[in-house]
Order: sequence, then C-alpha cells, then structure tokens
Amino acid sequence: MAVHATVPDVSISLSRLDRLRAAAAAAGAGAVIVTPGSDLRYLIGVAGSSFERLTALVVPSDPGSAMAFVSPALEYAGLRHLPLAELGVEVRTWVDGEDPYALALEGIAVGGTVAVSDQTPVLHAFRLRDQGSRDHVLAGPILRELRMRKDPAELEELRLVGAAIDRVHAQVGEWLAPGRTESDRVIERGDLVVVDIGGPLPSGYNSDSTRTYAAGLAPIGAVADAYAALEQAQQAAVDAVRPGVTCESIDEAARSVLRDAGLGDYFIHRTGHGIGLDVHEEPYIVAGNDLLLEAGMTFSIEPGVYVPGTWGARIEDIVAVTADGVEPLNTRPHGLAVV
Amino acid sequence: MAVHATVPDVSISLSRLDRLRAAAAAAGAGAVIVTPGSDLRYLIGVAGSSFERLTALVVPSDPGSAMAFVSPALEYAGLRHLPLAELGVEVRTWVDGEDPYALALEGIAVGGTVAVSDQTPVLHAFRLRDQGSRDHVLAGPILRELRMRKDPAELEELRLVGAAIDRVHAQVGEWLAPGRTESDRVIERGDLVVVDIGGPLPSGYNSDSTRTYAAGLAPIGAVADAYAALEQAQQAAVDAVRPGVTCESIDEAARSVLRDAGLGDYFIHRTGHGIGLDVHEEPYIVAGNDLLLEAGMTFSIEPGVYVPGTWGARIEDIVAVTADGVEPLNTRPHGLAVV
Repeated sequence: MAVHATVPDVSISLSRLDRLRAAAAAAGAGAVIVTPGSDLRYLIGVAGSSFERLTALVVPSDPGSAMAFVSPALEYAGLRHLPLAELGVEVRTWVDGEDPYALALEGIAVGGTVAVSDQTPVLHAFRLRDQGSRDHVLAGPILRELRMRKDPAELEELRLVGAAIDRVHAQVGEWLAPGRTESDRVIERGDLVVVDIGGPLPSGYNSDSTRTYAAGLAPIGAVADAYAALEQAQQAAVDAVRPGVTCESIDEAARSVLRDAGLGDYFIHRTGHGIGLDVHEEPYIVAGNDLLLEAGMTFSIEPGVYVPGTWGARIEDIVAVTADGVEPLNTRPHGLAVV
Repeated sequence: MAVHATVPDVSISLSRLDRLRAAAAAAGAGAVIVTPGSDLRYLIGVAGSSFERLTALVVPSDPGSAMAFVSPALEYAGLRHLPLAELGVEVRTWVDGEDPYALALEGIAVGGTVAVSDQTPVLHAFRLRDQGSRDHVLAGPILRELRMRKDPAELEELRLVGAAIDRVHAQVGEWLAPGRTESDRVIERGDLVVVDIGGPLPSGYNSDSTRTYAAGLAPIGAVADAYAALEQAQQAAVDAVRPGVTCESIDEAARSVLRDAGLGDYFIHRTGHGIGLDVHEEPYIVAGNDLLLEAGMTFSIEPGVYVPGTWGARIEDIVAVTADGVEPLNTRPHGLAVV
C-alpha cells in the first residue's frame, strides 16, 4: 500500500482546499494535482509516498468544478474512512489496465495550466504531461502560500515535537563519549561532535535540532573563541526574527557576526530552512530570498563553522515567528557540553 | 543528509554504466539524469531519496563525454569514499545560492533528448526542463533494460531476503489469533486474514510474500473450494514461467483458472510485479504486457480472490526465471494455516 490516512478535521481540510483553489486561481492555474507526500497529507490527511500506481487529488481552481480523488481501487479500500464526500471530492477509482492519467485530467481544459505537487515523481508527471497540450508547472509556489504559515494547532504540534527532540539532546551525554565510533571513525578526546537530529511525531510534524558536544575535554584558545562567535551568530539571527523582515536579513544577521570574527569563509551553507510536515520546506533562510516573514512561519536557525580537516560546530534551533517577535521551539543550552 | 552510500564494486558499476550509455544511445537519448532512488543505488551504490537540493548522476550516451556527479558540497562530504574517479565520473559540487540545474546540464546539447530517472521529483525535473529547449523523457524504459535482468549476485541477495521473509511467515501463528486487532477491527474466529509482508535487507533487495491465515477455524464449502482454486491458479502461473513466454501469458495462466472456477470477477488486480531494489518494478505481470521473460527476471506471482464485504485471500511468492524454467524464492506452504 502506497498510502494510509488519518481522518482529517473536515473544517480544516475544507478551509485549506478553499484557500488552495483561490491561490491556484490567483496563480493562473486551471487545476492543482497533488500526489502522495506532505502536500496531500496537509490537505486531506493522506500520508505515504507515491508508488507506481497513480494516486492524486485534483483540485480545479474553478469552485464550480468538482474536486476528484484518483485512487487505485485496491488502495482505496483502505481509504474509505476519508470524508471525501463531505469535502466535495468525487472519488475516481481505477484498476490495473485502465488509464489513471486520463481519469485525473477529465474535465481539465486542454491548453490551460496544470500545477503539479513538487514531490510528484516524473513517472507520473510526464505521463500526465503526455495526455494533451497543457502547461505543467510546479505547485510549490501555490501550496507554500498555505503551508508556510502554520495555524495554532500546527504550532502546537511543532512545540511538542521540538520538546521531544530536546529530551533526546538531554540524553546525548549517556551515549556519546571518547572511544565510541561514528561510522568508521573512533571519537577521540578533544573532538567536537556535531549531533544533528530530528524527525516526526505521529502528527507528521518534524523536529530538527543540532548541538555540538566536546568529547572529554573543552576546547580552548582559537576554537573556543570561534565557538563563542558561533553562539553569538545564532543568537543574532534569532533576535532579528519578527514579522516584516526578509528571510535574507536573518541569514545576514548570522553571517555578519561570523564574517566580523574572521570566520565567514567557514560558514558554507544557508542559515536555515522552513519546517513542518517536511523537514525542509519554505521559507528558506538564505541570501537572495526577499520573502517577508509573517507570524506563524517556522524555520531553523543553524549557522555553522567548519574548518576543513580540523573541526566543525553548528547550533540549530527551530523558531516560530510570533505577532511581534520570535518563539524558540528548542530550549536546550547552546554552550558546548563536555561529554 | 538526503543520501548515503556503500562502496560499490567498481567493476560492476563500470559495467552497468557502460550498458546504460549503450542503452541510452539506442533509445536516442543524449544523456540520462539519475537522481537519488533505486536507479542511483543500482549504478553507484548511493542510497536515499531526493531532498530539495539536487543530487544527480549525469550519464551522456556519448562515451567521449565525461559522466558527472552533481552534489551539494555539504552532502558530498559524506560521499568522498565513492570511487567516482575510478568510474570516470567527474564531481561537480555546488553550494546554496548556485544553480545546480545548469551545472547538471553543462555539456548536454540543447535540442537533444534527456532521459530523467522515474523517481525524480518534479521539483527537480521541471527546473531541469526549464534550463533550455530539450526533450525530457522517462529513463525507466532505458534503465529497465539493465535492472530487470538480475545478475548472479543480485539473485543471491533476493534468495537471502526471500528466505528471511519466509522465516517471518513461519512465526505469524505466534502473533495472529482471534481477538487480536487489525487497525480498528477485531479478528474473529473464522476470519481469513491476508498477511502481505516484505521489505529489504541492508543490501537493498526486497522481499514480498503473502499468505492467508484462517483465524481459529478452517473454512468449509464454497470458501474452501475457492481457496483451492486460488492455490491452483497460483501454481499454474508459476508452472508457466520460462524464458521466451510473455508476461501477459503468466497473468492469463492464473486468471483462466479463477475464471473457470467462476471467480474471475473477484480477481481484481494484475498477477504480479517485478522486484529487486524496488518492491514494485519491471516486469509487470499484467494483461497487455507482451514483454518476453528472460533468465534473471524476478517477480511476484500473487493472484487473489476478494468477495466484497465477505472474505478475501491471496497467495504470493517471488520467483526467478531460470535458463529453462522457474525458481521460487519463497517456499512456505500455500495451504491455509489455521492460527
């Protein structure tokens, strides 16, 4: 079975589907086709990933056209509890030998634009494309308008999973010590170890948090100074978060601290990524992203310093943008814990 | 990290890459682009799935053009042990803010055809498409020419994982009994329970095997007769397997037995699917597939009978096509076990 489903809250699903139609219309798309993945889970509670048989929710932007759920008949047997009729979604099952791509595009105007969810495998996307002359575009820019602003229930799920990963970090000292191995490398006294961990709770919402641990011995001198600058960089970025500022300004807040400390060349990645039903999603906290932060956005702030062949460190917390500032969803101390 | 890698056997990888180039040339594709998934694992041992940062192996069909491995610099740090230089693959790393799609298509002729691995998310495929005027097609028909004929080492992995899932089925009686629950349903005395299980060993090769168990009590009368017909249908399909016959003839061998027993309408899916690094892959054992079986192909034979609202049963074994017949990779008895 490619997919399974929890029963979504009908009013939340209805609201999300309505907003999706409106966003699709605003983007000039005639329909959005959503295949298994986090987008489908967000809209109607169906989790899992695509297999070789097409499963898809088809959402025309015209509110006068019915939405459709295309499903292999066999798999739909496990999805009968979904309140699709209440959501105004017509069920179209198919069996081996039938053409699910024609079924998905039934009623969608030829010549128009179809937006396809980002995680759709080309196995399905190219077969949809080959059904007739339509423009096919990514649905990501449409769906991010919904997904990147978390509602209060989503924020609560992110708080819960953030607290859960904090409890794991609180125990790292029980497992990490000089002499233990990391793949084929034995951890030596004095090593700094970057522990970047996370994952979902059954809600599907993810955690992602990084702490750096000192094995057996705290660093001194230049390494200690650089780590102190990293702590300042991370805090500067957190402090810069509030509605109305750009994503790239948060990246720059961290980067400028490291640059001023002479460490700019050692910070070789973006400062962060959005998080929710995907571990990495919009908004990306990266140079060039002039998207404005809004209340309800959640993302990581995770500057790092990596000196090739010598040592590296990273500090990562998830934060939520509030009405007037920021709420960190991870609360473990930032200092180097000697383990 | 989106990907991780074992060290592949260089001679096997080289042979697979050479055959891929030849198959791509024969199909008229200028290059094959392979992103994380089973195809990439098959070629160079890199496992895992795609994330938002592009990782791709680019294989031009012209043996005079270098192959390239495009990787986020951060993730490549964990892949340095790959023998890419020995494989003749040039490494092209990129950092946040750079354009990996242009990097992937560097040196690939505009106007030509690019084949994209089937599991590639459209997030990446549409951005590759938008780099310039090239025809983008599925790489599945090219890669299946390699992957659907297993070599002796692959067959041995499939035997091992088949034996492993047989050992699980041998224990099902310890867990399954009247009174236990299946999601929200309590199993009652007299129920038939279809247990379809499988998965990979660390090699990546998958098992998939189904047995039907009778809870507390063996069926009698029409149900027992139908189950006997199902056993005959499964055996008839296994007996029909040998090189040179079509996939659809195997489907028909099972289907005709059930049709003759008056159960044709209750067998609502194809008879089987190929199996290897994917649980479902080519060849599909389905009406309309006139592909000829060859030695080394491996697939499931899994007819079922499902009487809506009443009872259902399925028997599934994996088989391999041998030089002159068939080798079953699952060996548990087919009869209904009363548990």
